[in-house]
Amino acid sequence: MLSAHVICDAVHVSLEIGPDIVDITSNLNHLVGKSKLENGLLAASVVGSTGSLTTIEYEPGVVEDLKRAIENIAPPGDVYEHEMAWHDGNGHSHVQAAMMGPSIALPVRKGRLGLGTWQQVVLINHDNKARKRRVEVTIIGV
Amino acid sequence: MLSAHVICDAVHVSLEIGPDIVDITSNLNHLVGKSKLENGLLAASVVGSTGSLTTIEYEPGVVEDLKRAIENIAPPGDVYEHEMAWHDGNGHSHVQAAMMGPSIALPVRKGRLGLGTWQQVVLINHDNKARKRRVEVTIIGV
Amino acid sequence: MLSAHVICDAVHVSLEIGPDIVDITSNLNHLVGKSKLENGLLAASVVGSTGSLTTIEYEPGVVEDLKRAIENIAPPGDVYEHEMAWHDGNGHSHVQAAMMGPSIALPVRKGRLGLGTWQQVVLINHDNKARKRRVEVTIIGV
Repeated sequence: MLSAHVICDAVHVSLEIGPDIVDITSNLNHLVGKSKLENGLLAASVVGSTGSLTTIEYEPGVVEDLKRAIENIAPPGDVYEHEMAWHDGNGHSHVQAAMMGPSIALPVRKGRLGLGTWQQVVLINHDNKARKRRVEVTIIGV
Repeated sequence: MLSAHVICDAVHVSLEIGPDIVDITSNLNHLVGKSKLENGLLAASVVGSTGSLTTIEYEPGVVEDLKRAIENIAPPGDVYEHEMAWHDGNGHSHVQAAMMGPSIALPVRKGRLGLGTWQQVVLINHDNKARKRRVEVTIIGV
Repeated sequence: MLSAHVICDAVHVSLEIGPDIVDITSNLNHLVGKSKLENGLLAASVVGSTGSLTTIEYEPGVVEDLKRAIENIAPPGDVYEHEMAWHDGNGHSHVQAAMMGPSIALPVRKGRLGLGTWQQVVLINHDNKARKRRVEVTIIGV
């Protein structure tokens, strides 16, 4: 067994007003290539409390369907306690992001993410403003 | 402190039409035993965009309750953009899986998963077809 | 590249009847400090099937908004199969926790969690009883 190495890196992506869903698979695979690690784990986590990460088949239909489902779990038009105090109009964004979750832990296999052919990693901006998002990426492997 | 080792392995499970929920705890503990690693982390991720992973108390009541809640967040009978283009009838499957999340990161303690007594790891097939699912497993530990 | 080290530790927190949401960021950062590891990954996982982990901006408004959304995905007043057999009144707790997810994988950067300024890690008790919760924490880094 070989000893594991650790690489810390980050991806920066500009997103539109939420829910906006962007495919970051190639960004992550680029970091895996840069790391020279062949097998192990890639953990990614979005910085900030109105973003989330998951995987989907990245095609326009699924993207629209997921946006609608996200809006259903915390609709922008509802009344939020967060807005009562802060008046920034993004109470729904906080709830959506917390329920989707900020982090993901994916396999690295033969120098690439071990995903399905029709499976892409997406970064979601739930905020009511366009945001430049930072995703912290940690690759641990051999 | 000892240097970490990395083991990459996989679990294959046959699942029925979704939502189908299968306990894979013993499969994962088998891989932990095979790895000879005593303490660290096990990260698991389902390959494909219509599967997900979480933990539950695996008893028939909770399994049925969770199936119902999953169907509620994206009901099969709704209209999905994905189906307009692809006509494969699994628009709801994609949304359900994306919201549940594809990955999980669990503790390895004394050569076993560090779970509660009534806590099992489950693999969920959300697809509208029976599927043989591959779960990539990465164990990093000492 | 330096070889990775592995630290296994745990956090214990007392929580009220669910949904109760507690900020555990300082507990986790304390363990990162204790580990002496500067950069890598912290994976946390709640022990038991009626708890979950995510990140939020920990302020009273968001906490209340998230509680309401959690209750909406599995309301305590609904009928649950789990309760038919077990009569412990926490069928909703199991569903809520399974959908939120038991684990999180966060970056460690310069000896601290790499989170946003307004982003805190929260432990959620979904159970219908006050619970002392154990969170297993694995830090892998250099």
